[in-house]
Amino acid sequence: MNEQAIFHSHDSSYCFSVSENSAVFRIRVDKRDKFESIKLVYGSKYWFFEEQKRKELSKKFTDKYFDYYETTINFEDFTKDENRIIYIFELSFEGKNYYFSEEGVTEKYDFGKAFFSAYQLPPPNIIDIHKKVDFMDGAVFYQIFVDRFSKGNEKKDSKYINLKTGDIPTWKCFAGGDLKGIISKLKYLNELGVTVIYLTPIFRSNTNHKYDTIDFFEIDPHFGSVEDVKTLVDSAHKIGIQVVFDAVFNHCAEELKQWRDVVEKGKESQYFDWFTIAGDFPTQEPKNYKSFGNHAYMPRFNTSNKEVQAFLLKIATYWIKECDIDGWRLDVADEVSKDFWRQFRRSVKELKPNAIIIGENWHDASSYLKGDIFDSIMNYGFTRASIEYFVENNLSSKEYSETLSKLLMKNTNQANEMLVNLIDSHDMSRFLTRAGENVDKLILALSVLFLYKGVPMMYYGTEIGMIGGHDPDCRRVFDWSKAEETTPLMNVVKSLSKMRKSDVIKSGDIKLASDGELFVLERFNENSSIRLSLNNSKNNIKFKAKGKILLENNFKNNILKSYSFVIEQF
Amino acid sequence: MNEQAIFHSHDSSYCFSVSENSAVFRIRVDKRDKFESIKLVYGSKYWFFEEQKRKELSKKFTDKYFDYYETTINFEDFTKDENRIIYIFELSFEGKNYYFSEEGVTEKYDFGKAFFSAYQLPPPNIIDIHKKVDFMDGAVFYQIFVDRFSKGNEKKDSKYINLKTGDIPTWKCFAGGDLKGIISKLKYLNELGVTVIYLTPIFRSNTNHKYDTIDFFEIDPHFGSVEDVKTLVDSAHKIGIQVVFDAVFNHCAEELKQWRDVVEKGKESQYFDWFTIAGDFPTQEPKNYKSFGNHAYMPRFNTSNKEVQAFLLKIATYWIKECDIDGWRLDVADEVSKDFWRQFRRSVKELKPNAIIIGENWHDASSYLKGDIFDSIMNYGFTRASIEYFVENNLSSKEYSETLSKLLMKNTNQANEMLVNLIDSHDMSRFLTRAGENVDKLILALSVLFLYKGVPMMYYGTEIGMIGGHDPDCRRVFDWSKAEETTPLMNVVKSLSKMRKSDVIKSGDIKLASDGELFVLERFNENSSIRLSLNNSKNNIKFKAKGKILLENNFKNNILKSYSFVIEQF
Repeated sequence: MNEQAIFHSHDSSYCFSVSENSAVFRIRVDKRDKFESIKLVYGSKYWFFEEQKRKELSKKFTDKYFDYYETTINFEDFTKDENRIIYIFELSFEGKNYYFSEEGVTEKYDFGKAFFSAYQLPPPNIIDIHKKVDFMDGAVFYQIFVDRFSKGNEKKDSKYINLKTGDIPTWKCFAGGDLKGIISKLKYLNELGVTVIYLTPIFRSNTNHKYDTIDFFEIDPHFGSVEDVKTLVDSAHKIGIQVVFDAVFNHCAEELKQWRDVVEKGKESQYFDWFTIAGDFPTQEPKNYKSFGNHAYMPRFNTSNKEVQAFLLKIATYWIKECDIDGWRLDVADEVSKDFWRQFRRSVKELKPNAIIIGENWHDASSYLKGDIFDSIMNYGFTRASIEYFVENNLSSKEYSETLSKLLMKNTNQANEMLVNLIDSHDMSRFLTRAGENVDKLILALSVLFLYKGVPMMYYGTEIGMIGGHDPDCRRVFDWSKAEETTPLMNVVKSLSKMRKSDVIKSGDIKLASDGELFVLERFNENSSIRLSLNNSKNNIKFKAKGKILLENNFKNNILKSYSFVIEQF
Repeated sequence: MNEQAIFHSHDSSYCFSVSENSAVFRIRVDKRDKFESIKLVYGSKYWFFEEQKRKELSKKFTDKYFDYYETTINFEDFTKDENRIIYIFELSFEGKNYYFSEEGVTEKYDFGKAFFSAYQLPPPNIIDIHKKVDFMDGAVFYQIFVDRFSKGNEKKDSKYINLKTGDIPTWKCFAGGDLKGIISKLKYLNELGVTVIYLTPIFRSNTNHKYDTIDFFEIDPHFGSVEDVKTLVDSAHKIGIQVVFDAVFNHCAEELKQWRDVVEKGKESQYFDWFTIAGDFPTQEPKNYKSFGNHAYMPRFNTSNKEVQAFLLKIATYWIKECDIDGWRLDVADEVSKDFWRQFRRSVKELKPNAIIIGENWHDASSYLKGDIFDSIMNYGFTRASIEYFVENNLSSKEYSETLSKLLMKNTNQANEMLVNLIDSHDMSRFLTRAGENVDKLILALSVLFLYKGVPMMYYGTEIGMIGGHDPDCRRVFDWSKAEETTPLMNVVKSLSKMRKSDVIKSGDIKLASDGELFVLERFNENSSIRLSLNNSKNNIKFKAKGKILLENNFKNNILKSYSFVIEQF
């Protein structure tokens, strides 16, 4: 037994409450070790020394190194201790029983000392338990880069517009997209199956991307007005679409009133401590203040400062109160203080408990997803794995399955069910371009995106096969003439979106595996299951469907052609 | 190489900032694997793909299974990226280089993909970094069970007192100890070397232990008045002693006004939701409400409730404002909601940044010690290891050293330096009683308690050799006639307390090892070191002191007698 490989940690993705009366327990072991069984030995904190219960865990996922076992315990008839649970694990290995506790693996375990060496379920106080946001079940996200999506306001001064459909974008060009444009396309998005739109920033800013805000309380005049936002949100809500804004709270534009005051008055400015400046005045050469990505034109807020925190909290709540938006996507979330984000969560959730909070965290974000900070992140881990598998051919089907499994074991079930998965965004080359414009490859990736645990986010225009390399090229103008065409790609997107409304996708469990060259993803609950079988190889593969075929691409006569998939229902 | 044994996790005790410009990095490997070197490969988040720095980690601790490597990076001249650091590890093993990232161990690493698979230093925003409480450096804690320590008010009605010095306590007896009594003994405590006194609860309650509060805003009349508290705190501060109160915020007494209202009015009571009751009225048979340890007479607060939170926060701040106390020890801290504790921390620290917050967490508390919840816990892990080694002889010197090493690797350096270590308390048998009243054993345990990382807490009367089995027996009356005696035990306590004032103890590093049967603990900084060599065996051991002897017990003529120690300075 590789004792050193065994891992458990309480108060983490290895042990967490999902309600006041139920909790999930996981343990990780070397996958080369074949355990006869792994049991949770648990009981009341105060009576564990004399009374223990046992429940077997089941093997759930496998990755490169490890098997992951999991079980859920329901405490409903466990009244004596009111869920104050401590526990250890009992491992059956080669005909012998072992115990795993904070002391590691031992042949005996003294339950009289459990108060020191057993693990403890975190307190299941309802306020600490990460709650799911209702509208995330079965959701389909759609990211809109506002300047490039759709121009609806025909009355505005269009002199600033210098980018047309088909042009290659530069850093400084404008296409004229606006809020009225989005409103006019809500019906289109609804028919596509979209349930949540996420807009890149829309507050006043001089750039086309608007990630450098000049005024957080004003809608950029190129994009429209507060009234337009209200109309957008109202119209969207009427057809079951939620609207998520982008909060750029890490930094601002040089033109922000408070920064200008600091530039003018230096240390005498009341806003001096809103930023981090080494000197009495900010200087650009050499730059002596903190800024985003070291760019002088985006000074970074000091989010440890109480006044900055209050200012940003006011923005966060203002737009919910004023326009009833449904959540925030948080730009560069992992550079802003956690102390601030915790207050942000408190303020937002008090106002609108069902608002979604999504961090832009590219790296492992498990410490942000325990219920006190964010609900979700943009899951770039999924992006990377999918690019490696579908585009770069660095992963076999088995390795892709193992990588997606590992990602799921990083976080709690609640977090996994709210993670926003994506294959591309405004910050990277479009997937289709990476895939050499092979639409079948894109369709394959979308099939996994839509069926994997969590919520798919499509970058605008994915459904019409938009292309583009690294930003700014990935931000081309949406070609609305293509939105009318009935293509296999568009059909797949619509079908996959519809499929997400089924219970088995909304709340079903997931199994990931490979079968020879095939990648297999299954969603299941007590009543039914949906299985995706996917051929990412250059070869045709014989495959006999056994369930009802819900959707396929290039599957015929028991042959899954190269770059094809089939989804069956059982 | 046991790849499955290698462990690292960012935003944990394996990676944390200690200031805005410095951070600690650790990695854990199978101790059977002999690495030629382990290096941190780090750089700016935005430029890592083209520019990496390297620093070697050094082996710091060893436990049952693992070697732990650590390094500290100072970013002071690392201005380009403003400390937004990502990193992986480079392992030299059997003449070959490997990389360890989120992808596990690989022979190659593509720095161009680091944005997805590298680890990330948590944002070093000053407000998120766990700050040390000044007075914890070199501190000596002393826990006072108030009813049993010292009676100072000769004017009070003494009819309730029915326990005398030498008596064996029952659950319901009273010895008459009070605040005036503590005030009268401050000089004694000061001479003993005590710098912080922690008082078990003193708010109004009918029991002798007062862990079931009736009124959180009133001092128990048996103990004294608010004026007495003020005098105590003032007098203590004058001689450099801090005063820590006990916050019993998990539950209350049946007589608490709010609970009585609920008992009377049931669902109609405005306080009904302050508790968790299954029914319209609380009933005791069967008990239908949440309570502490399932005891009907201690209803548990619903600390998810905003009004309860506000009520408890008012208590927390009231006593700091009113009496200038220096912190709180939090009873049953791990059953109260973390959401509440985070607000508690915010409120307390805003009022008094240098107040100490200590949780009563018997189990692994690493998730409470990251800077957003507590500063410290009562370190019962230390207690257990010391009992197993000194009393139960379950651990060899090597195993004791490994267990103490493992405890240090659970938490950040800041937390380790503030952990309150103890060998006994009001909740367990006294150490001396466990040790068969062998004073030499107690002296040995104290030598480790005082020199280990963190802060020693002595339970009242340890210094005069008080005995007592499990509570209530461990709560006997302090025999002040013994406080005058100059015993080896008393001398050792005074000498060890004095030693804690040296820089090497205040801020020095620690090394733990065994040398044959000897247990060896070393504290060191750039200038000097202090080394404890301890013989916990039944045999005399030859030992040649090489440094200046600071303190010894039963060491003579190059012989460390059975149950003896020597502390040398280098």
